Order: sequence, then structure tokens, then C-alpha cells
Amino acid sequence: MRAAVLHGTRDLRLEERPEPVPRPGQVVVQVTSVGMCGSDTHYYEHGRIGPHVVAAPLILGHEASGTITAVGPGVSPDRIGQRVSVEPGVPDLTCPQCLAGRYNLCPGMVFFATPPVDGALAERVAVHGAFAHPVPDQLSDDAAALLEPLSVGIWACRKGHVTAGTRVLITGAGPIGLVAVQAALAFGATDVIVSDINPSRLALATELGATQVLDARESSLADLDHAPGVLLECSGNARATLDGLAVLDRAGRAVLVGMGVDELALPVPLLQERELEVTGTFRYAGTWPTAIALVSSGRVDLDRLVTGSFALADSAAALTAGRDDPQAVKVVVHPQT
Amino acid sequence: MRAAVLHGTRDLRLEERPEPVPRPGQVVVQVTSVGMCGSDTHYYEHGRIGPHVVAAPLILGHEASGTITAVGPGVSPDRIGQRVSVEPGVPDLTCPQCLAGRYNLCPGMVFFATPPVDGALAERVAVHGAFAHPVPDQLSDDAAALLEPLSVGIWACRKGHVTAGTRVLITGAGPIGLVAVQAALAFGATDVIVSDINPSRLALATELGATQVLDARESSLADLDHAPGVLLECSGNARATLDGLAVLDRAGRAVLVGMGVDELALPVPLLQERELEVTGTFRYAGTWPTAIALVSSGRVDLDRLVTGSFALADSAAALTAGRDDPQAVKVVVHPQT
Amino acid sequence: MRAAVLHGTRDLRLEERPEPVPRPGQVVVQVTSVGMCGSDTHYYEHGRIGPHVVAAPLILGHEASGTITAVGPGVSPDRIGQRVSVEPGVPDLTCPQCLAGRYNLCPGMVFFATPPVDGALAERVAVHGAFAHPVPDQLSDDAAALLEPLSVGIWACRKGHVTAGTRVLITGAGPIGLVAVQAALAFGATDVIVSDINPSRLALATELGATQVLDARESSLADLDHAPGVLLECSGNARATLDGLAVLDRAGRAVLVGMGVDELALPVPLLQERELEVTGTFRYAGTWPTAIALVSSGRVDLDRLVTGSFALADSAAALTAGRDDPQAVKVVVHPQT
Amino acid sequence: MRAAVLHGTRDLRLEERPEPVPRPGQVVVQVTSVGMCGSDTHYYEHGRIGPHVVAAPLILGHEASGTITAVGPGVSPDRIGQRVSVEPGVPDLTCPQCLAGRYNLCPGMVFFATPPVDGALAERVAVHGAFAHPVPDQLSDDAAALLEPLSVGIWACRKGHVTAGTRVLITGAGPIGLVAVQAALAFGATDVIVSDINPSRLALATELGATQVLDARESSLADLDHAPGVLLECSGNARATLDGLAVLDRAGRAVLVGMGVDELALPVPLLQERELEVTGTFRYAGTWPTAIALVSSGRVDLDRLVTGSFALADSAAALTAGRDDPQAVKVVVHPQT
Repeated sequence: MRAAVLHGTRDLRLEERPEPVPRPGQVVVQVTSVGMCGSDTHYYEHGRIGPHVVAAPLILGHEASGTITAVGPGVSPDRIGQRVSVEPGVPDLTCPQCLAGRYNLCPGMVFFATPPVDGALAERVAVHGAFAHPVPDQLSDDAAALLEPLSVGIWACRKGHVTAGTRVLITGAGPIGLVAVQAALAFGATDVIVSDINPSRLALATELGATQVLDARESSLADLDHAPGVLLECSGNARATLDGLAVLDRAGRAVLVGMGVDELALPVPLLQERELEVTGTFRYAGTWPTAIALVSSGRVDLDRLVTGSFALADSAAALTAGRDDPQAVKVVVHPQT
Repeated sequence: MRAAVLHGTRDLRLEERPEPVPRPGQVVVQVTSVGMCGSDTHYYEHGRIGPHVVAAPLILGHEASGTITAVGPGVSPDRIGQRVSVEPGVPDLTCPQCLAGRYNLCPGMVFFATPPVDGALAERVAVHGAFAHPVPDQLSDDAAALLEPLSVGIWACRKGHVTAGTRVLITGAGPIGLVAVQAALAFGATDVIVSDINPSRLALATELGATQVLDARESSLADLDHAPGVLLECSGNARATLDGLAVLDRAGRAVLVGMGVDELALPVPLLQERELEVTGTFRYAGTWPTAIALVSSGRVDLDRLVTGSFALADSAAALTAGRDDPQAVKVVVHPQT
Repeated sequence: MRAAVLHGTRDLRLEERPEPVPRPGQVVVQVTSVGMCGSDTHYYEHGRIGPHVVAAPLILGHEASGTITAVGPGVSPDRIGQRVSVEPGVPDLTCPQCLAGRYNLCPGMVFFATPPVDGALAERVAVHGAFAHPVPDQLSDDAAALLEPLSVGIWACRKGHVTAGTRVLITGAGPIGLVAVQAALAFGATDVIVSDINPSRLALATELGATQVLDARESSLADLDHAPGVLLECSGNARATLDGLAVLDRAGRAVLVGMGVDELALPVPLLQERELEVTGTFRYAGTWPTAIALVSSGRVDLDRLVTGSFALADSAAALTAGRDDPQAVKVVVHPQT
Repeated sequence: MRAAVLHGTRDLRLEERPEPVPRPGQVVVQVTSVGMCGSDTHYYEHGRIGPHVVAAPLILGHEASGTITAVGPGVSPDRIGQRVSVEPGVPDLTCPQCLAGRYNLCPGMVFFATPPVDGALAERVAVHGAFAHPVPDQLSDDAAALLEPLSVGIWACRKGHVTAGTRVLITGAGPIGLVAVQAALAFGATDVIVSDINPSRLALATELGATQVLDARESSLADLDHAPGVLLECSGNARATLDGLAVLDRAGRAVLVGMGVDELALPVPLLQERELEVTGTFRYAGTWPTAIALVSSGRVDLDRLVTGSFALADSAAALTAGRDDPQAVKVVVHPQT
């Protein structure tokens, strides 16, 4: 089968790879759609993300959907033909974090497209059967792939305790910020304020239901009429994070989702006087059933985020499409084309 | 001023009463709309509800909206002219329950239209300023009054831990069941299944967003495709309650909102094997800001529930209108007419 | 190796069985102590517990400790020689309940001494390595075995939200009630009131730290000076359960641990007016680390509960020892003797 | 009556003041013991704490106990003679924070010894009756006064979610660190590790139950055998805070209690990868009943913390006693002497 393999910085090659053989409990998924993520692009352009170095050829892609074509020992053959969305990380299941329901914090996690684990930019992949989630017909292939970034938004809302009537501030309107907007609305937020510096993304945020958008170059969060109770930080920008914290209501919660800030100059007196809670997210746990329900019920529109699609042979172009075009939001690769 | 006063069973009289004088911290509200509740009707027809006996003339009505016309000492005169929704119970504010944020459980609660405390079926009432909640223009007078029953639905959802993706079963589609439907959707429920025996109420539930309705005379909850995670019991019917409990998912929560069952034959082995949690609701606490946000944002439609309106002089007719007409849902009285 | 095998009602035979062979991920434990539980005695005397019928020869015992003597594929041989406490139920690890951290509710749970799964009344057993918890030297073999009932008490406290300063009422002072007393104290309860009808058990409750004991034949819970906030029901008696519920404080929590009541006449108005929460427990999840810490730190004394010990050949006597002697609390079998 | 009044930096004068007159709902407390807090000393030596400036003569002291000698309108005269511990802050009771049970975050809080509100270094003070908590005989006057700092420790444990079996790291063994040690043990912590640079305070921490102490000048937190799950930061030192954060377990919680750090260089990737939660405390809410129960039951020893006592006339000496003596922990003033 064919796969797009990263050999080094900006060196992505279409190669033949052996067909995946499912181990016990696994299924083979014929991949129909793979969303490109900023981390994929970062590996492509820099060959590493922090401590994670691409030391050997690596298949990228961790937002994937497809159809089950084979099953390993212990998996019902009835699953062959099932359309699935792939949850890209499989934990060891028995460590204390896993047993406590926090499997995203499992030290033994094996995660797609994180060196040396291959990802999904291939015609077929083998995955744990319990992490290949069946999706209903009304979900498109692309939407099924994008349940992964939606999961990030859902997890942020859970960490932020977003509920009916919550005022949510979202800093950053990139792909994660935009799924966070939709997730926050689905969790019942009645005010969803979004700040960014890209007007086309702010316009899309409004289209997706944001109740107020702010161009951070022109407006200040300090001018908000009402203090938000939750900050979902999706920009990875220190200034935006601090500005967001500064306007949070008493007992507010800040969830740092965006990556890129190594050290944040946390204002401790503010944290204390308002008893703010600050946390960060690391992937997600138990989000797929919710994500499927939200998209199936029409509460979240993932197809609207897709601004480009590419064949497997054009994966390199897909990886950089988002970088150069301010209109771009989410690019997908269709490995069967 | 005029008030509709209950003197005994089915003996409601329009009388002149002295104008209310606001005590420190109070405001006077000129009442524009009062929703009729089953408890009002019960007092009217039976002169009591359990231990609460109408021993002296009583003004009914505890779902009220209006406009502030006067303020007592310690309240800013700027509030005169403000449109408000009245939260009908005022706790003592300093008992352990109040200080813990559970003011609905305050033993010293003073609550409208609960003997011997008069309610709102009058031209004007004096209420605690902090419990007269300003409402935005887009809320109608009726909707502002019906924030009270909506609060019951919101409180049920909070007690049930309804969140994005929750499957909710609502037994009983009376006024409370119907606000619970809307509240559950606003909290993010993606499946809202409603059972009742009144086809017109089930039709209204569907119109309001219920994803599945069941006529309890024809269908069995046991046939549901998926186990709900939360039961909001709004029928006050023992059979419905037990049927609902029986289909709850493991770790499910049952919230008993409906009144009328004195003893429920709780299946303890089921409770244990599935670790169900069963609780009941007593009014609400801290729901008005959420209720206002949900109606203002269009997530909840309270006007749709109003099936009849009456002048103050016709309060007796209003109190019985819902009893005889299967199409009736919520009846309101407009005391200025 | 030898095992005590139940062939039918009161028909327990010492038999030779093949040595257990560890499957991947398993370890073999040479069993040093097995606590006898009421469920073991019930199977012995009645051949069934509700729907669970002893249809084929069954090895009883699910409270076990021992030493690892062999490991299966994928388990480090370094573990050989390790003293362990056995968690007797192994879930499927991948169902929604498991992934949510509620593995005790896993529909695929395989649990010791529940037909047709054999238990620990044998010289050696094979168990999942992650469920054979290493214990420090200061824990005796018996204490290591009794971490299982302690887990029931810990789980009850978690479900009850027992914390520093909580007033806890425990109905029933059998083995589970007595571990609940100690667990509640370890969770910070400052009042632990225990009711039972067995004076020697009440005396032991006092010795273990209960702050007040009541002989239910002479005293009424209604006479308590202060309303408890949490009820840990460990008697399986309907009268005790209802009496306990009746005295709970507003917003109180009742945890039904004891088995034996099929239907409880739940007072719904009380549940609603006080917003009580009622739940039941089904085994436990994630309790062993806490149990080990509590016993190691001296906060819980399990050895004090042991009132008799027997050789494997005397398992039948062990199973009935507790039934006839009011002084008996916990009986253990030492399979190596 | 006499009071110790701060007129300016290091200018404390014993003066005659008018007897306090209780307003409605208030009681007059004859003050028997007042604990000296670091904030009192800071006002004495610097005339301000951040934005809070001593612009007019101010009575210091906010840790107080005494006996009720008079009551205002609406308070039962039966309370005269009652021994009480004074909760020094009274919120407005009706703002959203108060109604939600977070009255410590009330913007309208009136708090002792915070300019321009006078404190308790006087013969008598008037306080809200609901915030004058009756104490049992077994509490000494000093212990009753020190329920206030204990409340800080209890609140930290609540914010930290300390429960049975939690591993707690406490950085800083001053008076707050030492009450946090005892509170953590009372909440069920089985490992309580304390770091400081003062050997006598570390020795006292050990005496009070800390399971491990570290001299931060000699040992590194990085050498801990097991990762703590909760950090209670009581030093107000940036280095200690960051070192504590660095060793927290996945899903750990850090509670910043100590004051003195304006900006903390928060390591965001660590926060995200481990999903740490960081929060701060601002006073406390609803802690007195717990504090009274913990001291009454013998779980917490406050008298052990008292290292000096002074007459009212010697308040200036009391305010500086702790500064110069490394053995000093808590100093009290007895205003009736």
C-alpha cells in the first residue's frame, strides 16, 4: 500500500509500505480522510516538536477516518465494512491514570504520528478496535476525521466546566479555537466571545455562532461588558493568555489549550484574589461518543471548517496549504485518491 | 390595590388590599404577569398541600414579573422603572445552607403563596431587591414570569449533571416536563426522550426539540435503543418513575422533580449494581441568571408554553383552565388588566 | 495443588487441581491468606446468590493475599517474590465504563468466586499483574487480604463524599460496617455514629474509633443531637435504612452498601424537601493504593478484625464460624497450612 | 474601653475608644484572645499591604475569640455568655458570589483590620451574630482565636481536593504551613512532606505529624520517592512554588496560599502535559464548623502553635515578637490583660 513518509525536513515521499496486519484486538482501517494539524506541519518543516525528534522515517497524520477492512483475533468480523473515526492514541489501560479514567495522561500512551509511531497518511492503518469508533451515515468522511480536533474542543470545555449560561472567552480562532466555539455553544454557553487578529477567521467564528468577536489589534478585552467565567486559550500567545486571565470573573477557570508559550508570567495576586483556576489540556479522554453525538445532532458543523482537500500524493502541498493562505482553516487528505 | 384572595376551597375573591410598603432592601413591583402553577390550583381546590394549610386568607401566585415602582431604604432609586422577574423565595441568607450556596434548603425560607405568606396575584408586591432580577427587553412579560418554572427545569438539569452529549429521559410532559426538555437541550443533551400519555403534549415536546417521544400507553421505555444517562422525572407518577429508573444506564442519575408519590418501591439491587444516584429537587438556587441567558439567547422559548391569559378578576377561571383542557399547558394572569 | 471446591450446598471438598498457568500479563500468586465473606458463606449454604447459581464446582474466596511465584509473558520476572494483595475483579479495560474510570461497572468484569469464575481458596491462583498490588512489609498477610473489604468501606466513603468534619452515620456493625467506621475516620469524619443490635460489635466499633454507638433495640436514631450528613448503610436492613434516611441532614447523602433489601419504601417527599442523594455501591474502583496507604500509615487496623484463622482443609468450618458466634467478625483461611 | 490603635508606621497607641454598640443582627464580644498574623505585622511596619493603605488610625487583629456580652436587635439574648470564635469577614450575603456559596469572593466583604475597617485588638468588638461561632468548652481561648488561620489551612485542603490517601507537599512551615500540615492530615493525607529552611519549624512540623521534612537548603524536592498529588504552597517564595510544581504528579493540584510572589514564571508545557491545576486561595468560606470539629475531636492542636502571649498594652511587642525569634510560631494578645 502507499503511504506519505517524512524522511527529513521538507522531505515527504510517497512510498510503498507493507499492508498492516492487525494484532489481537486490532482492526485495519482503509483511510478515507486525514485532517492536517499544525503539529504535522511543524514536523514537516522542522523535523521535531520540542523533545520529539523525527529520527527515522515517519508517517504523519493523526486525524483520520475510514472503513474497517479486516479484523484481528478477538474482534468480531461483523465490524468489517463499518465506517469509523480513529482515536489516534492508545493507552496501556492498566496504569493508575488509565484506571482512574484519565487515560490521556497514561505514561505508556502510543500516539499516531509521534516519533517513532507512524500515523495515518497511508492507504490503510491498523488500530485498536476499541479506539476505532463507529460513526453514523450522516457524518461525512471529513467530519469523521475531524472528530479528533473537535475532541480537543470538547475536552477544553470539560476542563473549563462550561455549562448552560456560561460566558466563555476564546482567545485564538484557528482550527482549535473554531471547534472550541462550537463545543462551547454545544455545552450551553450563551456568550462566546472570540478574539484573534485574522478578520476572516473572526468572520467564520461569527458564522459558527460566536456572540461577539474582537480584533485583538484594535479592541481590548478590558472593554468587555461582562466578565467571562471561562477562558479557553487557543492561541498559544502569552499576551492573549494574560489579557484573557485579567478579565476573568471571580472563581473563573482558564484552560490553556494552545501550545507555544514556554513560561507565562502568571499574576499570582490576581489568581488568589479571584481564586482563578488555571489548567492545561493534554489531548482528551472519552470524548468520541460526545463528539459523534454533537455532530450527528447538527450542533457542530465540521465540514464547514474544511477549506481544501488533497490526494495522498499531494500530502506535502496539504501540509503547507494552511500556512500561506489566511482564508485556510482545515485541510484534509483523502488517501484513497 | 386589588388582589385575588383565597378564602377557602374554591373561594377566590377580588379584594382591595393596602399598597405594599417596601422594607429596607425591598422593592415594590407592579405585577404584569403571573403564571399559574399546579400548586396554586391545588390550594384553590383543596385548601392545602400536605402540611401546608390555607388557614387564613391567602394571595396565590409565585411566578411573577413586573416593573419596579418604588424602592425601600438601601435600594438605589435608579431601579425604579426596571423590568424584573421575581424569584419568589427569600432565604435567611446566614444559615449554614445559605452560606454553602444551597439557599433553597434554608429552613427560614419565606416563599410566595405558601401559607401564611402571600403571593403575587395582586397589582403590586414588595420583594427583596436582590430577588427581583432585571430582564432584558427581548423577554416578554410572560416569559419573565415563567423564568420560575424554567428555573425548576434548570435546577433539575444541574442536579442530573446534564452536559453535552447526555442522553436524557423525561417522564411527564406537563409544564415542568416541557421546560425540562428545553433546559436539557440547552445544557447540551443530544438525546431527549419524553414519555407521557397526552398526545398533544408529546407533540409540543417534539416541537420544542425532543428527539423522541413515547406514548406511555402504547410504548415501553424498555424498548429504547440506548440507555439514557439521566432521568428527569416530571410526572409525579410512581410507575413512570420506576420504569425510568429501570432503563437508566450504569452510573446514571435520576432526579425526582414531580410531586405526588409518597413512597417509591425503590429497587435497591438495581441501584447498587448500576450505582445509580437518585435525588429530588426542592425549588432551585442561583438559576435566574442562567434562565435569563437561555431565554435571551433564544435557546429556550417560554412564550410558546402560554396557552391562555386572563385578567386579575378572572383568576379563578385561570386556576382551573389547565385542568379541563388537554391542550392547555401554561396559563397566565395579567394583574394590570 | 490443593483447592477447596464447592460441589453443592454445604458440600465443600479439598481437591487436587492443576497448577495455574499465567497467561500474558498474569502472575501466579501463592496464596497466604483468604478472608471469608458473607457471600462465600451464602454460596456455601444456599448454592446461589440471586441470579448467580453454583452450577458447576466452584472455588470460593475473593479476599486474598500472597506472594508472586511465577509470571506470564509481558510481566517482569523481578516481580517474583513480591508480596501482593489481590484485587479480585478484572474488567475488560476498554468499555465506556472502564475508559471513564468506573471499571467496577464494566459489564465484562471477571470476578473471583462468582460462578463460573473460581476464587482464591487454593494454594495458588493466576491473576492479572496490574491487579496484584505490592504491599509493604508492615502489612500482615491477613491485613493484605482484608484490603478487599476495606476497599468496600473506602468506596462507600468516596460515594458519600465523606471529608474533614463530616458527621457519618453507619447502620450495621458487621465486617463492612467496621471497616466503614475506620474508613470514615480516615477520610476525616469527626462524628461517626454506629447503630447495630449486637453489643460486642458495638463495643468493637467504639474501640475502632466510633464516637457514638447505639443499640438499635433500645435507642432511636431520631434522638441524635445532630443530623448526620452522610449515611453509610451496611446492615442490609430496610428498617435501619429508612431510619437512617429519616435523620439525614439537608443535602445529605445515603450510600446503600449492605445487601438484602429488594425494595425500599423510599419517602420521596423527604428526598425532595431535603434534596437527599441516595446511591448504592457495587464493589469499588481504584481503591487499593488508598487502602494500602491507610493501613501502612496506621490509620486503619485490619488485624484487629480477625477473630479466627483456619487451615485450607478446614475451609468449611471457616465458612460457618462467623454465623454462630456473636463475637466473630472476620475469619481467615491460610491456604499454605 | 481600651484598644491598640495603629496611627502610622510603628506607631501603635493604647487608647480609649467608645464601647461598641451592636447593630441589628450583631453581638458584642468581649475579646479574650487575638492571634497576631503576618499581615498585622506588615501593616505595623509598613503602613500598607499593596493597595490597602492605613490612611486613618486603625485597630489591627483579625484572629479573635471571646465571650458575648450584649446582643443587638434580632439576636436572642440567650447568646449572652456564649464563648465564640470570630469569623472576621462579613460579606453582603446577596451578591452572586454569596448566593453561590463563595462568600469569600464577595466584592462587598467587610473584613477586620483591613483599612478602613477596625479589627479586634480591643477589649470589645461588635460582630455579625452569624459570624460569631459558638465553641465548646474543650477549646481554649487561644485555640478559638486560631480557628482563623486553621480556616486558611482547611480552605487550602478543600481547594486541593485533599482526601484519604493523598500525598501532600507543603512548601513553607510558618504558621499557615503548620496549620496546613494538620489540616491535610485531618483530611486523610497519608504522606505530608514539608519543606522549609528553618530547622525548628521543620521539627515542629514533624511533631505535628508531617511524614517527611526537607531542609530546602540541603535537599531537593526532585529527590522525592513519590510524586505528590497536591501542593499547598505556604511560603510565598517563587523558587519553592516552581520546585513544588515541578514534582507534582499528573493531574496534580497546586494551591497557592502564601503571598509575596507577584509574577510566577509558570511552565505552561508542564501544566499541559500533566494537566496540573493551579489555583490560589483568598481567605475561606464555610470553614468554622469544620475547624471547630477538628479541634474538638483532637485531630488538630492549635495550642501547640502558641509561642508567646502578651497583654493588650504590649501589642506592639506582640506584633514584632515573631519576626526576630526563629523559634516563634504564633503569638497571641489577651486584651483583657
